[in-house]
Amino acid sequence: MQQGILIVLSGPSGTGKGTICKELLRSMPELHYSVSATTRPARTGEIKGVSYHFVSLESFQQMLSQDALLEWAQVYGQYYGTPRQYVDEKLQNGQDVVLEIDVQGAMKIKEKFPQGVFIFIVPPSLAELSVRINKRGSDTPDAIAKRLGCAKTELSLAGSYNYVIMNDEVAKAVNKIRSIVTAEKCRTVRNQDILDKICND
Amino acid sequence: MQQGILIVLSGPSGTGKGTICKELLRSMPELHYSVSATTRPARTGEIKGVSYHFVSLESFQQMLSQDALLEWAQVYGQYYGTPRQYVDEKLQNGQDVVLEIDVQGAMKIKEKFPQGVFIFIVPPSLAELSVRINKRGSDTPDAIAKRLGCAKTELSLAGSYNYVIMNDEVAKAVNKIRSIVTAEKCRTVRNQDILDKICND
Repeated sequence: MQQGILIVLSGPSGTGKGTICKELLRSMPELHYSVSATTRPARTGEIKGVSYHFVSLESFQQMLSQDALLEWAQVYGQYYGTPRQYVDEKLQNGQDVVLEIDVQGAMKIKEKFPQGVFIFIVPPSLAELSVRINKRGSDTPDAIAKRLGCAKTELSLAGSYNYVIMNDEVAKAVNKIRSIVTAEKCRTVRNQDILDKICND
Repeated sequence: MQQGILIVLSGPSGTGKGTICKELLRSMPELHYSVSATTRPARTGEIKGVSYHFVSLESFQQMLSQDALLEWAQVYGQYYGTPRQYVDEKLQNGQDVVLEIDVQGAMKIKEKFPQGVFIFIVPPSLAELSVRINKRGSDTPDAIAKRLGCAKTELSLAGSYNYVIMNDEVAKAVNKIRSIVTAEKCRTVRNQDILDKICND
């Protein structure tokens, strides 16, 4: 059976990749979202097993020791990771999986899945990114400056991605990603079985 | 300025690439169709400069001696070729060009434009291809057998193409090619200017 496609949505913090991911999944329900595991407590409105797999530190450490995570990171004292089993199973069943993940995580995933489709979501400008991070209201001026500095560094990693999507308008960005998914399914490397069938029928 | 994209539609004879090309150009008027030059006389309904550039043998030979053709071939005693100037000018102006061309010609184009987008259009099956060639009514049983033999050889060249599109339904095939064009415009290699602009603004 033809393997599914691993679609990795990534980009600097504040570019709106979370919103784009949500809209993409709504418009392409055939895609399977890989839910991250985290040790941080659920926030109001977050749904267990949908927003995150909320696990204890002990469970997380067990996953680590069993090599059950494709990648993981510690952010502000909490652990986050991508469970391997879900991704592997879906792909092996020929189903396409979406990962929404930070830039460092995406680079780790790329080492394990070089054949994945890596999409880099960028803001229209750093000025606009600054406005968006400010609007969140959750960061101090120092934290904002730090995030913008990180964004600049992360933008220099764009060359490791297959595609760049500018998020100037969510609907437009989502349509482009839909096209990318459709196009990727047409790649010759993913259709050798069809070619063989035509030649041998 | 960002170079335009060269989109090459190709595939074995009888797969319907001509029809697909026409529909694609109708639905994406921003694409520019590269008109071939030929020494054969115009058929009823063919429009000078739209269907083909109809030229004399002398003119064709002059184009050849001036290296004015990207590729050329002799078919049933008549010459066909792709004028270089139109393709070069459009691409340099950042405009996208569509070539609809046989498999041998596509391979020659690939040597000169490895960065082009090569799309291989295939029939649902060789049996279906046989039905389609029969329907044309213009081939003898021997010629049909020969075409099918060629098709099988040509299918083995699919690996040289970026994408494979099965033409089981024209509208579906055209939509996939539209997605491919949209996706290719999002490729990181084609968006370095945007990334530079974000980082340097």
